[in-house]
Amino acid sequence: MAVYTHVDDQTLADFLKRYDLGAATSFKGIAEGVENSNYLLETEKTRLILTLYEKRANPEDLPYFLDLMEHLADAGLPAPLPMHDRDGAALQTLMGRPACLISFLKGVSVDDTNETQCAALGTMLARMHIALESFKQTRANDLSLTGWQKLAQETADRADEVMTGLSAIVSDEIAFLEAHWPQGLPTGTIHADLFPDNVLFTGNEITGLIDFYFGCTDMLAYDLAVCINAWCFDGQHRFMPGKAKRLVEMYDAKRPMGGAEVTALPILCRGAAMRFLLTRLYDWLNPVEGAVVRPKDPLEYLAKLRFHQSVKDTASYVV
Amino acid sequence: MAVYTHVDDQTLADFLKRYDLGAATSFKGIAEGVENSNYLLETEKTRLILTLYEKRANPEDLPYFLDLMEHLADAGLPAPLPMHDRDGAALQTLMGRPACLISFLKGVSVDDTNETQCAALGTMLARMHIALESFKQTRANDLSLTGWQKLAQETADRADEVMTGLSAIVSDEIAFLEAHWPQGLPTGTIHADLFPDNVLFTGNEITGLIDFYFGCTDMLAYDLAVCINAWCFDGQHRFMPGKAKRLVEMYDAKRPMGGAEVTALPILCRGAAMRFLLTRLYDWLNPVEGAVVRPKDPLEYLAKLRFHQSVKDTASYVV
Repeated sequence: MAVYTHVDDQTLADFLKRYDLGAATSFKGIAEGVENSNYLLETEKTRLILTLYEKRANPEDLPYFLDLMEHLADAGLPAPLPMHDRDGAALQTLMGRPACLISFLKGVSVDDTNETQCAALGTMLARMHIALESFKQTRANDLSLTGWQKLAQETADRADEVMTGLSAIVSDEIAFLEAHWPQGLPTGTIHADLFPDNVLFTGNEITGLIDFYFGCTDMLAYDLAVCINAWCFDGQHRFMPGKAKRLVEMYDAKRPMGGAEVTALPILCRGAAMRFLLTRLYDWLNPVEGAVVRPKDPLEYLAKLRFHQSVKDTASYVV
Repeated sequence: MAVYTHVDDQTLADFLKRYDLGAATSFKGIAEGVENSNYLLETEKTRLILTLYEKRANPEDLPYFLDLMEHLADAGLPAPLPMHDRDGAALQTLMGRPACLISFLKGVSVDDTNETQCAALGTMLARMHIALESFKQTRANDLSLTGWQKLAQETADRADEVMTGLSAIVSDEIAFLEAHWPQGLPTGTIHADLFPDNVLFTGNEITGLIDFYFGCTDMLAYDLAVCINAWCFDGQHRFMPGKAKRLVEMYDAKRPMGGAEVTALPILCRGAAMRFLLTRLYDWLNPVEGAVVRPKDPLEYLAKLRFHQSVKDTASYVV
C-alpha cells in the first residue's frame, strides 16, 4: 500500500468503546488493499477488519459502499457486514481519517482459478445482481466510457514508452467503443472489480466477496465482462474457453440474460479490457512514491483486448 | 517491509501437506517485520504465522533462532513455537526462500507503556534469561562493540547530514565505550531487541514475545539496558524514572543481579543507545528503495544517549 496509518493501542481501545464488541485481543496490519490501511482485529467477541480510508478514497462515496455491503450481507451473501456503533453509525473517524469496522470473512483468494470456481463465481455474481435489485442507491461508474476517454488523454503522450504504437491502439479502440458502446441494457448495482483477489474460497465454495470500493451503477453484463477478463485467461494471457463457458452459463442459469445482453458481451469485454489497460497504464506511468505494490503490467490487458477484438460473436465465449 | 513475497494458494496448499495442520481457511499478508514476509494463516486446526526470510536474513542463523523460540515455548514462556513437518523439520523452503511456520500468539503491542507493563516486562525478561540457561547454542552479537565501530566508520562521512557534529559525538562515544565496556559480567542468551512492538499484551499481562531475530549470546544485563532505552522514555525522549524503577526492580526480584552488573548498568545503557543510534543512522543514510517503513529517527537515540551520559550511577535508574 502506498500509505499506512499506524493506529496506536490506546486510540484503538478508545475507538472500540463506541461498540459492544469487547476489547482487542489481537491487532495486525494487513498487506491488503492498495489504497487504504487495513487491520485484522480480534476482540473478545469476534473478528473484524478495520479499514482507514486514505487520501484516494472520496469520503462522499463511503456511505454508499458501506450500505452496499450491508445490503448484501443482510441478503445472506458472503459480503462484509459493517458494524454499527451504539449510536447506529457505521462510518467513523479514526486517526483523522474516515474509518469503518467490518466483519471478517473466512477463505483464501485463489491465484489460478479452476473451472469449478469459475462456475461458482457465475452463480454468485448473478445472486449478487439479483440481491441488489432492491438496493436503491446509485453511483455513476467513473471508470466507464467518459473515464476511459480522460485516462486515454492523460496517458496519450507517454503510452508509447510502454510499447511503441500503444497510444494509437488506445485511441482507435476508444473511438470504436464510443461508436458501439451498448445502450439500453439492464442496469443495476455492480461490483466492477471482481478479480480473484476479491473473492475468498474455502475449497470450491465462495465464502467471501470483498473490496466493494469500485461498486457503482452500470450494465449488469459489464460486471460479467470484467469477470471474463479477470478469471478466464491463463498466466500467459491465453483465453481459457472452459472457464468462460462455466462462468457465463452458471450466471445465465441464475439470472437469464436477454438477447441484447448476450449479443453485447464481446464489446463489453473489450470495454472491460480497456478499463484495466488504461488504469494500469496510468499507474505504470505515474508510480506512487514509496508504494510497496509494484504497478501491474498494462500489456496483460492489451493481450486480452486483442483477443476480444478477434472474437466473432458471443458464441466464442461459451464454446 | 522492503520486500514482500507473494505465496499463491496452490503453493500454500502443497506446503501445508507437509504438516498435520489441515488446509488453509484464511491467509493474509501482515505488515509486520521490516525484513521478512509474514502471513497470518488459519488452518482447519489452528492459527499460525508463516514467515519467509528475505535477503537480509542469514540462512545459517535461522536454525539458531528457531531453536531459541522452541526452547522458550517448551519452557512455558509465551514465545512462538516453530511447527515441525512430518519429517521433523522446522526450517523449510518456500518460493525459493527459507521459511517457517510458527504458532500465533494473542495480544496487542503497546505504544505508550505504563509502569505495570514495565514491571511485567522486568519479570518476563528475567524468566526468559533463566529459561535460556539450559539453551546451549551460541551466536555472537554482531551488533556489539565491533559492529558499532564498523557502523560508525560507514556513517562517519555523512553523519553530519543528519546533525552537525554527530560524527564527532559518535566517534567520541565509541572511544569511551571501547575503553570502558564491561568484561566478565554474566552472559547468556539474550533477545537484544525487546522493544514494545515485540511484546504482546492482553491488558497488563504479557501474552507474547516475538521477533527473536537479533537473539544472541551477550551480557544478560545488556538486554535489560536495551529495555530501559526502549521502554522507559516518553514520546519526547524524556527519561521516565517510575518505569525504569519497576522494570529493574522486578527483573532483579526474579533474577538477582550481581554488584558488577548493577554498577555497569549506566554504561550498558550508553552502549544500547549507541547500538540503535548507529543502526538507525545507517538506515537513514541508506534508505531501502521502495520500503514502506520510513527509517526511524536516529536522533531519538542521541537524546537517550545524552541522558545516560549525564547519569551519575545506577541509582539514577531506580530512584
